[in-house]
Amino acid sequence: MNVTVRGRSRPFRTVTFDTARNAVRLIDQRLLPHTFHVVSLDDFAQTAQAIGQMVVRGAGAIGATAAYGLAQGARAFRGRGLDRFSRHLQTVYQTLKAARPTAVDPVSAMDQVCAAVQAGKTVEERQTLALAAAEEFANQDVRHCQEIGRHGARLIGQGMNVLTHCNAGWLAFVDVGSATGPLYAAQAQGRAFHVYCDETRPRSQGSTLTAWELAQQQISHQIIADNAAGHLMQRGQIDLVIVGSDRTLGRTGEVANKIGTYTKAVLARRHGLPFYVAIPLSTIDWNLNSGFDIPIEQRHESEVLGAWGVVESPSLEDGSRRPEVRSRKRARRRVYVRVGNPGSGALNPGFDVTPPELITGIITPLGVFQPADLWANRRQLGYPA
Amino acid sequence: MNVTVRGRSRPFRTVTFDTARNAVRLIDQRLLPHTFHVVSLDDFAQTAQAIGQMVVRGAGAIGATAAYGLAQGARAFRGRGLDRFSRHLQTVYQTLKAARPTAVDPVSAMDQVCAAVQAGKTVEERQTLALAAAEEFANQDVRHCQEIGRHGARLIGQGMNVLTHCNAGWLAFVDVGSATGPLYAAQAQGRAFHVYCDETRPRSQGSTLTAWELAQQQISHQIIADNAAGHLMQRGQIDLVIVGSDRTLGRTGEVANKIGTYTKAVLARRHGLPFYVAIPLSTIDWNLNSGFDIPIEQRHESEVLGAWGVVESPSLEDGSRRPEVRSRKRARRRVYVRVGNPGSGALNPGFDVTPPELITGIITPLGVFQPADLWANRRQLGYPA
Repeated sequence: MNVTVRGRSRPFRTVTFDTARNAVRLIDQRLLPHTFHVVSLDDFAQTAQAIGQMVVRGAGAIGATAAYGLAQGARAFRGRGLDRFSRHLQTVYQTLKAARPTAVDPVSAMDQVCAAVQAGKTVEERQTLALAAAEEFANQDVRHCQEIGRHGARLIGQGMNVLTHCNAGWLAFVDVGSATGPLYAAQAQGRAFHVYCDETRPRSQGSTLTAWELAQQQISHQIIADNAAGHLMQRGQIDLVIVGSDRTLGRTGEVANKIGTYTKAVLARRHGLPFYVAIPLSTIDWNLNSGFDIPIEQRHESEVLGAWGVVESPSLEDGSRRPEVRSRKRARRRVYVRVGNPGSGALNPGFDVTPPELITGIITPLGVFQPADLWANRRQLGYPA
Repeated sequence: MNVTVRGRSRPFRTVTFDTARNAVRLIDQRLLPHTFHVVSLDDFAQTAQAIGQMVVRGAGAIGATAAYGLAQGARAFRGRGLDRFSRHLQTVYQTLKAARPTAVDPVSAMDQVCAAVQAGKTVEERQTLALAAAEEFANQDVRHCQEIGRHGARLIGQGMNVLTHCNAGWLAFVDVGSATGPLYAAQAQGRAFHVYCDETRPRSQGSTLTAWELAQQQISHQIIADNAAGHLMQRGQIDLVIVGSDRTLGRTGEVANKIGTYTKAVLARRHGLPFYVAIPLSTIDWNLNSGFDIPIEQRHESEVLGAWGVVESPSLEDGSRRPEVRSRKRARRRVYVRVGNPGSGALNPGFDVTPPELITGIITPLGVFQPADLWANRRQLGYPA
């Protein structure tokens, strides 16, 4: 999608590869929305470090970063012989895997690259195949999001108000995004609509990342407190809800996503509003039999007790409203402020589970499915035979 | 209620009067929860300024402050003659009223003082009566909250988990509080329970004021993101919801309260949980015929786009967990940080309206009523005949 830098709107992907310099390039998401900066990672160890330090986050985005990192490591091999090359590749693989040990996307992405490499008869051939496979993984991620966008765009009519939660946008993928895919596709089809971005406390991905994306893309939007959606629905100011998913149970249609998603689904049901979940097929879990079996990560209480931001005067409605982000040179340092009472603790579950009866439809690259129909369509949807 | 200062727990009221110095004393709520400081206001103009600058907030608390401020002004009168005294009192009244022109509580509190003063035959008698009436207003506010506590405490069983939203605590009244009244009464009756404080974005009154109160009173509690309550209800971790109210419609039983209250009521209904609203009688509006007629204040977008807090390192789970608040001398300056995307705006409705069918009961100083029964019991509940 587009980013406006120094007054010019330019297309960017979250993750790209610089073939000439054998470098992985990432938008540094830790600096957004206050500073736009692309980091260039010159070897696979740096790439692994960037994954570990959350320079990049989101299923598709870290998958592509790991795939590129593996190709980068393969291309840096200066030795001789396929055996040594294979051992080197294993080292690279394990280094990248260890950067985010519980994430599944880097592993499945790197497995695709490893499988493709086997066809090469020489080191040079395998190096070439590794990069081609990584590029293919990234392009496939984009195509899947574009297909989600194509299927979901028809839900967004002219003049509609759409609510979204957290960030399942292009920053979480290589480009386009899942929950944002339908928005960008509807915009491309010439329709005007308005998006309410849930702030998404405690980490505020809605007010930082989703709002930043929509501003870059010049889609009409406003940030709202997570408390406000119920009131807006009551007053008829929301027509449709679209969210992403961290894990969707193929057997039951339950959806695990950022904390607060379930609340929005309950509110949508009360007001008779459609509630859609947009997912790439890789997030479908075909094993679990119940949402209660999904482990809910308890995150650090400091997220709830405070906030990250840049110090400024609160009454800047004028100069601060520049859609352009700052360059690295003009970066403003984010600080943590404690908001809550210093004598109090917090409970911070990171995700919740929305039951299928509250979900109008699941938008996949292959079309929109009823949550209860995922299992019946499992062959089509990638169930491992 | 109690405040721990320099290791000692001492009883405090939100608003008190220093007769010897003719001064109104207020807990400076703008500095909480990071700094505990009591300001002493030496004349009615200072008292009016404190109301205007939000040193004190909450219906009962600003009512008592205005009543004391009027008595303070009356007692400062050094002239002669009832006529001049009355004109002086009018000046004081108008000054205090103008400090928060849309608030009804200061006006009704001062009207009580003005009515009581009429029985005095001399300036001195009227000065004495003014202070007595202000004291009576404050004590009555405390008694009403104690009665709310008495009626509500029976809802809170041993080991229960209670959810509350925003701050309808003793800081919003002279003491005890409305939504917190049942908590403090149940504690006094020897029952142990746990409270989840909704953070209550965008102004975070739950994580700043309610959590501070509960910590001072040594009630087990945790702050949660507003997004988390639905998940906790789903997992059976909440047994009861108690909130306050800014305005309750006597004709319909609808409740206007801080934004997000309605969402909690919808969630409670889905999970079959009791949802109670605790109110003093002064918040009942006997005129409006529909909650849609309640004007919903649109507040400044900076509240949603950022947060107020003190800069610190986020990983202090040790030293930062002192239940004691800092004294003025060690005050840490609160700063505003912008969290959200600088190119984005926000929509910030301050209140929402909860319909009567979602409310299990309304806890008043006179007992617990079904919302639909307020009108039938209007004579008892203070309907102006």
